[in-house]
Amino acid sequence: MSGIPERLVAFADSLADASRPLALRHWRRTRDFDRKADESPVTVADRAIEKTLRDLIEHHYPDHGIAGEEFGGLRTDARHVWSIDPIDGTRAFVSGSPLFGTLIALVRDGVPILGIIDIPALDERWRGAGDGPATLNGTPVGTRRPRSLGDAILGSTSPLMFTDTDTATLAPVRERVGMQIFGGDCYLYGLLALGTIDLVIEAGLSDYDYLAGAALIHAAGGIMTDWQGRPLGIGTSDRVVAAGDPAVHAEVISLLGGAAAHDG
Amino acid sequence: MSGIPERLVAFADSLADASRPLALRHWRRTRDFDRKADESPVTVADRAIEKTLRDLIEHHYPDHGIAGEEFGGLRTDARHVWSIDPIDGTRAFVSGSPLFGTLIALVRDGVPILGIIDIPALDERWRGAGDGPATLNGTPVGTRRPRSLGDAILGSTSPLMFTDTDTATLAPVRERVGMQIFGGDCYLYGLLALGTIDLVIEAGLSDYDYLAGAALIHAAGGIMTDWQGRPLGIGTSDRVVAAGDPAVHAEVISLLGGAAAHDG
Repeated sequence: MSGIPERLVAFADSLADASRPLALRHWRRTRDFDRKADESPVTVADRAIEKTLRDLIEHHYPDHGIAGEEFGGLRTDARHVWSIDPIDGTRAFVSGSPLFGTLIALVRDGVPILGIIDIPALDERWRGAGDGPATLNGTPVGTRRPRSLGDAILGSTSPLMFTDTDTATLAPVRERVGMQIFGGDCYLYGLLALGTIDLVIEAGLSDYDYLAGAALIHAAGGIMTDWQGRPLGIGTSDRVVAAGDPAVHAEVISLLGGAAAHDG
Repeated sequence: MSGIPERLVAFADSLADASRPLALRHWRRTRDFDRKADESPVTVADRAIEKTLRDLIEHHYPDHGIAGEEFGGLRTDARHVWSIDPIDGTRAFVSGSPLFGTLIALVRDGVPILGIIDIPALDERWRGAGDGPATLNGTPVGTRRPRSLGDAILGSTSPLMFTDTDTATLAPVRERVGMQIFGGDCYLYGLLALGTIDLVIEAGLSDYDYLAGAALIHAAGGIMTDWQGRPLGIGTSDRVVAAGDPAVHAEVISLLGGAAAHDG
């Protein structure tokens, strides 16, 4: 992967700076929530953030594309496309948990090359650009290599994100890992980049949910693909496997494929 | 419930003050973990905290009993018994998540009358004594009342804490609530006291996991019992239902009982 211009990295940081106060203004301030058709709660913060970030991108990079959760796509055939998830972890947000974040990714020629996971309530910002290093609040971080899959910690936001078929496909992996944790949303990818967990496997995602994580995990020394091991881009998949150790990733992809073959 | 002496509340706070640096000293500092027979990871912090708190209790209240996760019971037939869970959310702790806490409860004549949930990594301390009010970092907080069970947010740490029978018993509740979140451990009880979620239902717990929460939720205006609606004390149950609204609690207990009757 060729170098990522510093001005793009700085601009991505400025987007996260702009989103933070908008997220915190509404956090723990309401006791109600409403729902989208998919049962995901929406907050005023979601729309305020995305609107602000889109305006900044339009102003500074009018030839770049934008793919956002709330307001859809714009020039998505451009060489550079910004992917925005204003509030990832909306269930956590409306529940008053601090584990929600703003996701910002830059996709160039179809490849996520820059990713920010910003956690407003915790003043934590993970960033990954190109081949790294990834950083947490500016300090380099990196993934770890467990001795084996049996030592690995696996994270998934919710068991409800998996269909029954997904759950059957996942069973051989779950039986082998050392520990499973639930909850977390984008924070799981931060912990993976930090080297305190080893795997994140999720389903039912949209591209704005995973593009920032994909760039971050690559920069941190790991790998993130779909369940077939294919690269992630805009609209590629709703199922992801992220691993800190490429060898563990390969083992997991093999286990998922074996289970799928048995099922099919 | 009669008044709780201020000196006991202040002493409980001093225990939490003593535990914090011990927890943070080891958080995100190790990339390994070991396991107990029950697969729950143990950390050095666990033992250091409980040892320190037991010494403080022995020094200041030598006639009080102690029931701790790591070092068992001492004078548990005393009128006052301190329950200690040095690190609740050990999976979160070893995964680098900030959502772990130290739980301190005082049980008097079998009733949890004082509870502290201290979250070292977030500098958040929930406290509840007697009939309240509950506080977060000293500021009064309280539970909320959802319009109906269909508006309620339900939290549970992990789907893996439930047996197959538990899962079947829970189904009627899960089908009716507005939203489910996973992960959180003791933090869920804090969010319940804060009035940003409505229900916590868990299983597979030990008394040191729920006694602090029971005192906190009572002080915050809610109610926490076992799945049959019975009061919680030392060794009473491994299944708990905590609700911010007593009416929602009654509805859930009824649904759990109905399901159990159908199963049995």
